[in-house]
Amino acid sequence: MKLDLLQKVRTDNPMILNIANSVTQSDVANGISAIGASPLMTNYDAELKTLAQMASGVCINIGTLDERQNELSKDLLKLALDFNKPVVLDPVGIGAVPERLAFVEDLFKVAKPTIIRGNAGEIASLVGVSWSAKGIDSIDEGQTKSVDEIAKACSKKFDCVTVVTGVTDTIATRDLISHTFNGNKIFTTRVGTGDMLSSIIAVFAAVSDGNYFEGAKMACLIFGLAGELVMTETPNIGPAAFSTRLLDQLYTINTEDIKRWGKYDE
Amino acid sequence: MKLDLLQKVRTDNPMILNIANSVTQSDVANGISAIGASPLMTNYDAELKTLAQMASGVCINIGTLDERQNELSKDLLKLALDFNKPVVLDPVGIGAVPERLAFVEDLFKVAKPTIIRGNAGEIASLVGVSWSAKGIDSIDEGQTKSVDEIAKACSKKFDCVTVVTGVTDTIATRDLISHTFNGNKIFTTRVGTGDMLSSIIAVFAAVSDGNYFEGAKMACLIFGLAGELVMTETPNIGPAAFSTRLLDQLYTINTEDIKRWGKYDE
Amino acid sequence: MKLDLLQKVRTDNPMILNIANSVTQSDVANGISAIGASPLMTNYDAELKTLAQMASGVCINIGTLDERQNELSKDLLKLALDFNKPVVLDPVGIGAVPERLAFVEDLFKVAKPTIIRGNAGEIASLVGVSWSAKGIDSIDEGQTKSVDEIAKACSKKFDCVTVVTGVTDTIATRDLISHTFNGNKIFTTRVGTGDMLSSIIAVFAAVSDGNYFEGAKMACLIFGLAGELVMTETPNIGPAAFSTRLLDQLYTINTEDIKRWGKYDE
Repeated sequence: MKLDLLQKVRTDNPMILNIANSVTQSDVANGISAIGASPLMTNYDAELKTLAQMASGVCINIGTLDERQNELSKDLLKLALDFNKPVVLDPVGIGAVPERLAFVEDLFKVAKPTIIRGNAGEIASLVGVSWSAKGIDSIDEGQTKSVDEIAKACSKKFDCVTVVTGVTDTIATRDLISHTFNGNKIFTTRVGTGDMLSSIIAVFAAVSDGNYFEGAKMACLIFGLAGELVMTETPNIGPAAFSTRLLDQLYTINTEDIKRWGKYDE
Repeated sequence: MKLDLLQKVRTDNPMILNIANSVTQSDVANGISAIGASPLMTNYDAELKTLAQMASGVCINIGTLDERQNELSKDLLKLALDFNKPVVLDPVGIGAVPERLAFVEDLFKVAKPTIIRGNAGEIASLVGVSWSAKGIDSIDEGQTKSVDEIAKACSKKFDCVTVVTGVTDTIATRDLISHTFNGNKIFTTRVGTGDMLSSIIAVFAAVSDGNYFEGAKMACLIFGLAGELVMTETPNIGPAAFSTRLLDQLYTINTEDIKRWGKYDE
Repeated sequence: MKLDLLQKVRTDNPMILNIANSVTQSDVANGISAIGASPLMTNYDAELKTLAQMASGVCINIGTLDERQNELSKDLLKLALDFNKPVVLDPVGIGAVPERLAFVEDLFKVAKPTIIRGNAGEIASLVGVSWSAKGIDSIDEGQTKSVDEIAKACSKKFDCVTVVTGVTDTIATRDLISHTFNGNKIFTTRVGTGDMLSSIIAVFAAVSDGNYFEGAKMACLIFGLAGELVMTETPNIGPAAFSTRLLDQLYTINTEDIKRWGKYDE
């Protein structure tokens, strides 16, 4: 685990450009800021090229689509990759909503993202595996093995890093696989924690010197651990107080916390 | 009062589809989630039919209109009713802004919502009664009787359940009327609490087996009581801390709380 | 310093109309509400004229541009000035993004705003001075003198009040200059505090009887002091808890607090 990436985020202060889920964009922007990076959200095609060049990492979230934004997402994906910037895709809801899957398939005709992060149902739908999902929620799976297979299949199919989040987070390339185990079930009760993680993956990808697998691992570890630490300190809080404390934990979490409490394989 | 609807929300976890007020959509989504349902916000016509079919309830909020969203609202209203899903309309600002009232009149040419929730000024404007309102704010009326009449008139005119919120919440069909009395004046200082209630009415309507009057009553009772309990426990907090605690109270409130503290007639 | 403007805000409860940064609009709306005014956000051209007439002050924020909103901003600027309403412009990001500067130059062909608030890099770009800026962030400058010159130059060029915010806030007309010194560096870690201040400047401008210089001074003083008081009371909190407490401090701050703790020249 490349623990020094956390310090690198705080030193480099990378700018992360987002096409955001409009519902959760305030939490996402503040999550990016809390961990030590600079958020920028755009919906303006005139500035897309300038911002893609300025950015150190990009996150495209499809939580709230519309026709105009879909075109922007395609343009931004292409521009960012042309400038060698890592692009995280968060395919919100494609496991349950065929029209969202159709858009992602359209998007992939333009280019493939560097990293894809979703729950098991979303990633399964990308590789044509059926998976029982309810709405767009996460799945509490007991089937880690098949999640591993789906993650690897996705990475192979789209030549990307794949992150499948749930009770355990699974990070895969076509050849490598890794898991992070920190977290807490309260994450599922606060809207937009998945969106936050996707943008934080873009933060760590941005400082990873091209080692996006390691960047994604660190993002999952830190995000899950931050939430776990909050619930250890204040076990009886609800989702809204959790959200505030999670942001502030991201602001203060350090390498010592990870060394002491982090749970991950390899 | 059908107290068992609260448990039904938590067991069934209904998906509530929203055309949202963009300013308050994060609070609204988290309010839906806190009470035990699943929020989804959309602005994407391609997915509207799929989502209307998946949803258990719908809320259309006109707090931030634009031409494209207006067309979506019309389409969603029709689709949802065709699929027999209850639709709550929150006609934000129609008491003060004629162009918003004009849009609602347009919308009603397509179909009538199942439930309308507004403040006295908004509901009065729907039935052609003049009512002194300041901007889009709630009115502290001392005239319960005439609120009852306006609520009933609205229900009769549009064949819907009408909810008029204020110090007292009034829930009416053309024949029935009921009131809930819990609440606290701090609700008026936090932007979007009315929007939250409208979507929570959709939550309870979704599990009411078609008894939308009872669903709306339970939503008003629980929402007002949750806020009242917060202010009883922490009487000196401001609107922002209130917002966090309100969400977390919605997450934990239970039938015993309602039996003990709920104030309502019949 | 016209301390009585604070009481005037709470008595008059002015309605402030915003074309908002979509990322931060919830915080901005709640900031306007906390200080004692009424927020309204619009993106709907049909209601623009009605709302411009109803409003007591206007804030146009360019943090999240798109073509349609750009046209709305032009229309609203003209309408509001025609109705003699003060208009605050927050030119987010123009120091770093040429396409945003281009839009502002376009906007200024329609009319000049009453007040412009930005960081030193943003205001410098408006008067053609180069200024080292990183992204759209504030600059910790040690060069108060040249900030003064830039602020005055901006006021002269556009015949407006200029507010340059940073460690010290600088408020200038072409002839007058003033500074407020309260604040805390945590402001820079919470996304949208600048946006909040811009809309709160519109609040105080709205009750200033046309003395926009004095209105802007009071807004900067109160906003900076509110944050400083939060950090004096709870020095170890993070940016998210700060945001909640800042809003609640704006809700309770009073003239006595300003007399006791306010730091400003002349």
